[in-house]
Amino acid sequence: MLTTKDLTVEKINALLKSAQEFAEGKTVKAVDEIYVSNLFFEDSTRTKTSFDLAQRKLGLHVVPFDVTASSVNKGESLYDTVKTFESLGVNLTVIRHKQDKYYEELKNISIPVINGGDGSGNHPSQTLLDLMTIQQEFGKFKGLKIGIVGDVKHSRVANSNAEALRKLGAKVYFSGPEKWFDEGTIINGTYLSIDDLVTEVDVVMLLRIQHERHGEKMKISLESYHRKFGLTKEREKMMKKGAIIMHPAPINRGVEIAGELVECERSRIFQQMKNGVFARMAILKDALESKGFKFK
Amino acid sequence: MLTTKDLTVEKINALLKSAQEFAEGKTVKAVDEIYVSNLFFEDSTRTKTSFDLAQRKLGLHVVPFDVTASSVNKGESLYDTVKTFESLGVNLTVIRHKQDKYYEELKNISIPVINGGDGSGNHPSQTLLDLMTIQQEFGKFKGLKIGIVGDVKHSRVANSNAEALRKLGAKVYFSGPEKWFDEGTIINGTYLSIDDLVTEVDVVMLLRIQHERHGEKMKISLESYHRKFGLTKEREKMMKKGAIIMHPAPINRGVEIAGELVECERSRIFQQMKNGVFARMAILKDALESKGFKFK
Amino acid sequence: MLTTKDLTVEKINALLKSAQEFAEGKTVKAVDEIYVSNLFFEDSTRTKTSFDLAQRKLGLHVVPFDVTASSVNKGESLYDTVKTFESLGVNLTVIRHKQDKYYEELKNISIPVINGGDGSGNHPSQTLLDLMTIQQEFGKFKGLKIGIVGDVKHSRVANSNAEALRKLGAKVYFSGPEKWFDEGTIINGTYLSIDDLVTEVDVVMLLRIQHERHGEKMKISLESYHRKFGLTKEREKMMKKGAIIMHPAPINRGVEIAGELVECERSRIFQQMKNGVFARMAILKDALESKGFKFK
Repeated sequence: MLTTKDLTVEKINALLKSAQEFAEGKTVKAVDEIYVSNLFFEDSTRTKTSFDLAQRKLGLHVVPFDVTASSVNKGESLYDTVKTFESLGVNLTVIRHKQDKYYEELKNISIPVINGGDGSGNHPSQTLLDLMTIQQEFGKFKGLKIGIVGDVKHSRVANSNAEALRKLGAKVYFSGPEKWFDEGTIINGTYLSIDDLVTEVDVVMLLRIQHERHGEKMKISLESYHRKFGLTKEREKMMKKGAIIMHPAPINRGVEIAGELVECERSRIFQQMKNGVFARMAILKDALESKGFKFK
Repeated sequence: MLTTKDLTVEKINALLKSAQEFAEGKTVKAVDEIYVSNLFFEDSTRTKTSFDLAQRKLGLHVVPFDVTASSVNKGESLYDTVKTFESLGVNLTVIRHKQDKYYEELKNISIPVINGGDGSGNHPSQTLLDLMTIQQEFGKFKGLKIGIVGDVKHSRVANSNAEALRKLGAKVYFSGPEKWFDEGTIINGTYLSIDDLVTEVDVVMLLRIQHERHGEKMKISLESYHRKFGLTKEREKMMKKGAIIMHPAPINRGVEIAGELVECERSRIFQQMKNGVFARMAILKDALESKGFKFK
Repeated sequence: MLTTKDLTVEKINALLKSAQEFAEGKTVKAVDEIYVSNLFFEDSTRTKTSFDLAQRKLGLHVVPFDVTASSVNKGESLYDTVKTFESLGVNLTVIRHKQDKYYEELKNISIPVINGGDGSGNHPSQTLLDLMTIQQEFGKFKGLKIGIVGDVKHSRVANSNAEALRKLGAKVYFSGPEKWFDEGTIINGTYLSIDDLVTEVDVVMLLRIQHERHGEKMKISLESYHRKFGLTKEREKMMKKGAIIMHPAPINRGVEIAGELVECERSRIFQQMKNGVFARMAILKDALESKGFKFK
């Protein structure tokens, strides 16, 4: 599972169904002794821990990898590192790497590689947990209006999610500083000011400002960003009845969203994290079953 | 378990009893699938490894956390990090953090938080293992004379231990460079020169010089510190028959204590480490049982 | 298991037999609850992960250790760190440390210490996996011609391997920049230019250039090194029928070996990694059995 593009509507629905079963308490364990490793070349708490928990709940053996203590520091290439894990007998890896489409280098790897985020590109497991959260709330995607707000250009989540949501029949709107939008992205969605967007949509899907990916320093202060583009307390009051707030986290409190809203009634932010473990259990089980491993 | 202050004498005795049973070979395992994570924001070998071993011996699943590869680097707050682990399904966390009373920020967290050390404040699991070591030796606390020697002002151990020892009826003495004593601390103990202290007490409890917490550079050399305030080979000979030496480690050999004394007959330093695993098993089991988890 | 020197021919053969059984699918698990920890003070992917996997496959509990988050940063000595793990109840440690013969400091440690590499000295588990790879290929050592090529002076592998291979009856040749050879090493082998060596030997055993150990900057460019001392595509064609290529990795592609040769037909590089897990299972099982632990 490398990009959201690879996923058909049927596959998405099958994974959502499996994830929802885990959410409702289903437990399965690997029949075989399966070894997995999470090769995270970029900082992460949620995604890495979430995969780790999903793996342990499926009865897999998690082999640690710490990039700062690895031979990557001796100049080893990504391919050689992954090939090493394959040779050592690891049966599946999850990879996060700052390089866009790093997985194109890994064509000769025969064990499953799950994409835990590549550069500004894809983050398909995040998409699945976001879809799961929306489905739990609304029971459908068709006709829903989803507003993606913020740092669209630098966000893996924006790209992955917009694609999947359109495929499933939702209407996608964007908001945020205009210079942050790629041409390609704007063409497939509608740009709205944040004030117009919050009254229109069923889901306000906030993105994190990726300070660390901005080549040049942001021209506006964080307070000013919050006022002009963020979900303020006032804007939350303008949202439709039943509309929800989502954010992939980590949250810059007081920037993308007012600190007080993080755990408000509309917020599904921590529900998203909870769903993340179940979504990843579904993804891992599916990838391993495709290689003939069994669960029961 | 956040501060030693929270612990009644009854609770201390119950935990000591449970820890001693583990020391004598009792084994129990969690009936449920329990996930725990040790969020150490400061360097540690002993405390972290000790909790980790205690958790594994209780049959818990330990989910790794590495602060240097976490979203803390993207500016995530402590509360959001802990709330994330709770949302992901982790059932208990142990936290070490440099901020005094960091746990006051965590009131809305509903899973147990065990304090693995906060700033210069508390370190209750260390206290429990120290008490356990003293009890194994003397079978009681009442009437015992305990000398706490060294960097009292910067030591979590000094604060936690002095409080508990007085509660249990021991008499606490202090020694070390006078400018390192807080007013509050001295008031509840007696200050003695190191030469007077070693002949008086049943336990010489050495503290580590916390180089990394001293705002200004120490004014005296390490050799000079050892001569004026440390446990030299000569001073060890002046100790009472049956009196013991303790140190929470890591040890600055030749500073707080002569290197030759670290494993001498009076030393209980490595016994303390051994007891640490059992003390933490008792603490963890107690915290989890209070949430309804079962062991057998 | 600290140095290759300690190993008799009988012991080597017993370990190779045990490792080969694991390679052929034998599985055993520890009867007791055994805790192990891998104390790697230097970067490693392969060796550390390989030991980790070997340990899990034997049913051991692996207690994590991260030097960058340890009390080593507070100045704790190696002895005190290892003694701590022993006191905490860890039953065996694997250590990699940059100091030559670090294990001489550890004489008072009573749990087994497996050497995962010391300074420029020994790396006996790598030797065992290399021997295993050669034995799988040729079924014998006697009379084989082995060429060790490259940075002999800075390589743990060169020292460990040359010693064992001679003991087993193989003939060892060296090649590489002459100034990189120790007197002692050259005396026990024959120096050949790389062009002469590749036509002569059954095994071309390449060493990694240890950039990080060279006190002074290398005087020649990497391209020039490859041309003068490396295994180029042209030199591979000059190798004998049935001769194989080995490398302990990580590989500097285009320096010690042309990138295209890494997975060529003669290459056993990834086979070596695979064998590494089995060789380490044999070593661990042997060390633990010598302490009375049982496997079945």
